[in-house]
Amino acid sequence: MSVVGVVGGGQLARMMIPAAINLGIELRVLAESDDSSARFAASQVGDFRNLEHLRTFSQGVDVLTFDHEHVPLEHLRVLREEGVDVFPPPEALALTQDKTVMRKALQGWDIPQPRWSVVTGADGSALDDVGGFPCIAKLPVGGYDGKGVMVAHSWGDIEQWLAVGPVLLEELVDFRRELAQLSARRPSGQWEPWLPVETVQEGGVCSIVKSPAGGLSSSARSEAARIARVVAESAGVVGVLAVELFEDSSGELLVNELAMRPHNSGHVFTEQSVTSQFEQHLRAVTDCPLGSTDFRHPSAAMVNVFGAAPYDAWARVAGEHPAAKLHSYQKAARPGRKAGHIVVTGVDGDTVEQDAISARDKYLGEI
Amino acid sequence: MSVVGVVGGGQLARMMIPAAINLGIELRVLAESDDSSARFAASQVGDFRNLEHLRTFSQGVDVLTFDHEHVPLEHLRVLREEGVDVFPPPEALALTQDKTVMRKALQGWDIPQPRWSVVTGADGSALDDVGGFPCIAKLPVGGYDGKGVMVAHSWGDIEQWLAVGPVLLEELVDFRRELAQLSARRPSGQWEPWLPVETVQEGGVCSIVKSPAGGLSSSARSEAARIARVVAESAGVVGVLAVELFEDSSGELLVNELAMRPHNSGHVFTEQSVTSQFEQHLRAVTDCPLGSTDFRHPSAAMVNVFGAAPYDAWARVAGEHPAAKLHSYQKAARPGRKAGHIVVTGVDGDTVEQDAISARDKYLGEI
Repeated sequence: MSVVGVVGGGQLARMMIPAAINLGIELRVLAESDDSSARFAASQVGDFRNLEHLRTFSQGVDVLTFDHEHVPLEHLRVLREEGVDVFPPPEALALTQDKTVMRKALQGWDIPQPRWSVVTGADGSALDDVGGFPCIAKLPVGGYDGKGVMVAHSWGDIEQWLAVGPVLLEELVDFRRELAQLSARRPSGQWEPWLPVETVQEGGVCSIVKSPAGGLSSSARSEAARIARVVAESAGVVGVLAVELFEDSSGELLVNELAMRPHNSGHVFTEQSVTSQFEQHLRAVTDCPLGSTDFRHPSAAMVNVFGAAPYDAWARVAGEHPAAKLHSYQKAARPGRKAGHIVVTGVDGDTVEQDAISARDKYLGEI
Repeated sequence: MSVVGVVGGGQLARMMIPAAINLGIELRVLAESDDSSARFAASQVGDFRNLEHLRTFSQGVDVLTFDHEHVPLEHLRVLREEGVDVFPPPEALALTQDKTVMRKALQGWDIPQPRWSVVTGADGSALDDVGGFPCIAKLPVGGYDGKGVMVAHSWGDIEQWLAVGPVLLEELVDFRRELAQLSARRPSGQWEPWLPVETVQEGGVCSIVKSPAGGLSSSARSEAARIARVVAESAGVVGVLAVELFEDSSGELLVNELAMRPHNSGHVFTEQSVTSQFEQHLRAVTDCPLGSTDFRHPSAAMVNVFGAAPYDAWARVAGEHPAAKLHSYQKAARPGRKAGHIVVTGVDGDTVEQDAISARDKYLGEI
């Protein structure tokens, strides 16, 4: 189990490379293009929707895993029948590809979540089920980073989506803040959580992560871990599982989204935890015992960098922020694109957050 | 300054790759063979003693640096004249290529070191200068990891060496223990040390590193830092400088060896320090402000793994050592070869050392 194939050459695959280098795992990446973020480990450029490309890529690979959740499940089932270990398995990935499938599964496992319904047209009863307008409307398939999600105030708002197919409606939760519970699970069953983090979104995209989430009671921490464990075990997740949560006005935790791979909300752990989410994912999918999720530093903050993250500009601001760690994804510059992130660790949560934000703002000013 | 060329494809070049990936530096490696430890970043396979190979490799590289100290200085001077930034510069590297040059330079800077002399044959006066037999005899050029070094008890012991050329004699220091002072320096002058570490050698090869060195007075810490700073500034070092020190029976620090690159004694900092020596080296040679050398954990221990360091064997012992971090160099197995290392960080120095040793011993039992 020492050759791991990653489908997708984005920043998540990129950040698996250091962990693979440390552990002595041979990492191969099926990248979308020659200039992918994970190009250093790209063994093939191909189309993840093409079974033949996937089949060629899987030759000599001990286990297949993912940078994203968009690989057609039917292809993964074929590969598995042909003897390739696929982690997370297609049955688990199904929950991340179709939000309706996720909602139904969570309901079956009695996991707290926002009220939801599926509509194919104007449907007063279904609307009542989610508390009426305004509510959240989602395309069940294909959304990411705020795309395919809107606050709907009327049927007219989702008219165009309804013309294409069913739309998932969700109660507009009056939440205090958003949290994420990261954990990892091995095929043999071992499961390890990190402490929950707080995520701050801007325009539907993660902007800041504070770790651990401050002021969380031990019962709330236990509940976050319980939810993640039920999902991981019930869905048969293998690898890192990110559970995005709303903390509502009464303190109850409700599942917003799931991801079955390293996740933006877990980037802080590379500096803060004994084991990064990238190392843990590789350990999990190769069924190696999981590493400690203890923290090296009591507090950490991560801020995303959008647009571009060049090193030369970093060198102009790094002197003022010696504790700040840059992670550049070396992607072609594009407005609004996640291009990198900065992590600061330390003792006091507010201090590290301010340092990270200040470093980012000065950095953006130099790009 | 975002394309860094590394001459040599050993584990030090390998461990620069994660740091380069994080910072968004393009790392290129001139490797000795297709299966070098740093093969993921190898852009060329060639001979570091061949000027044409070096010249081809340097095309498009912003700065040239090193995995080892064996590149002919005359080649580096030519490349520099042709416009390539070479860090550390050849004048500094000269001290690491010829131990006699180093001893003379340290003497000129009034740095404490063992008494020494150079002999070309049996020379009673030179022998008296180092306190007589037994003394340490060294080949001035080409030794490493205990090779080219011996305890000489008579002229007969070094007869074969003397037939080839001059031999460096050094006083046999009655030392309590060995320490290493790591630091880094930028071309623009910024210099940052880590705390001194203790190194334990077996058969002339580093076996264990304890960080920080325990029971060191603040004046001894200051003296170690002072020595490193004088060497770095006087020699014009750019990049990481490792100063290996004897702590003699009276507590005085004497310089044993120098290395101008990331060094085995600094591997602990990858887990323990806010900035690893590999990241610091890349920052230094690209003249980026240096990162914080603060510790995330008060104590760390590193143990080397010799022979081989396969991942599958690690998976059989990792469950008992969740805090232990493996670094495999993915080298072909060879008895006695440095094949990897294990780091454990924590609060108590003895505890982390015992955990690291125990993890290594169980690991070796599984290989």
